[in-house]
Amino acid sequence: MSETTRALASQGGASQVEEGTAFAPKFDANGLLTCVTIEASSGEVLMVAHMNALALQRTIATREAWYFSRSRRELWRKGATSGFVQRVIEMRVDCDQDTILLRVEQAGGGACHTGRHSCFYREVPLGSEGPITLEVRDQKVFDPSAVYGERT
Amino acid sequence: MSETTRALASQGGASQVEEGTAFAPKFDANGLLTCVTIEASSGEVLMVAHMNALALQRTIATREAWYFSRSRRELWRKGATSGFVQRVIEMRVDCDQDTILLRVEQAGGGACHTGRHSCFYREVPLGSEGPITLEVRDQKVFDPSAVYGERT
Repeated sequence: MSETTRALASQGGASQVEEGTAFAPKFDANGLLTCVTIEASSGEVLMVAHMNALALQRTIATREAWYFSRSRRELWRKGATSGFVQRVIEMRVDCDQDTILLRVEQAGGGACHTGRHSCFYREVPLGSEGPITLEVRDQKVFDPSAVYGERT
Repeated sequence: MSETTRALASQGGASQVEEGTAFAPKFDANGLLTCVTIEASSGEVLMVAHMNALALQRTIATREAWYFSRSRRELWRKGATSGFVQRVIEMRVDCDQDTILLRVEQAGGGACHTGRHSCFYREVPLGSEGPITLEVRDQKVFDPSAVYGERT
């Protein structure tokens, strides 16, 4: 694919970053932004991942979600293996421009590599004393070994 | 306040972290988790912030959102200055346990220190060529200088 060459602005002072209309994303020390991805139809939070500048630019250019995998240290087109791509309906940026919010149409069964629709399938109980035991709230909607192959 | 002493488990292998019910949050090199906070009534994403272990434990114990401010390097009870506290209705954790999702009741006008209801008040236009100009989608719902005092 041809790379987009759309320029990203450098960050100015806080009022410019927060009140201005220049897109000046604040990448962290590893060159990454945080990205929250929600499902357009349901509003559900599907996943949180990271983007480097190239993933951000490809997402803007192609209207499909690209991320940067910190564990594999590589650019990652969501759905490249599973076919469960994310078509981006809307992108927003937060006040200090270090976090992206994507509103997407999620293809296939779900966003989570474990087989769930959302990565947030477990609840953390609040308030009570004693050891914290997670409560599973959402079941698998696809078989990850069938979609990704056996994990090693 | 008395500190909670609820133990957080250490992370085991991937299948234990992803499929188990032990709460074993994966703090990053700076001792932080990412936290996405959504409004219970609307489902809107209000903000993304960070939690250290103490912020996490206080949030669990008090059912009010506590964060760790990276810029001020201090524990931060959301709403301590503004009164715009967040009562936590539900906490979830993601597959690899490095991100928390809070469903909250947001007191007062909004969650963003700039005066907006949500931090994600600007849209990043997709696809087109040329410089990227953000489009402001949400207006201020409170006057931050009245709530926080003049920023220096």
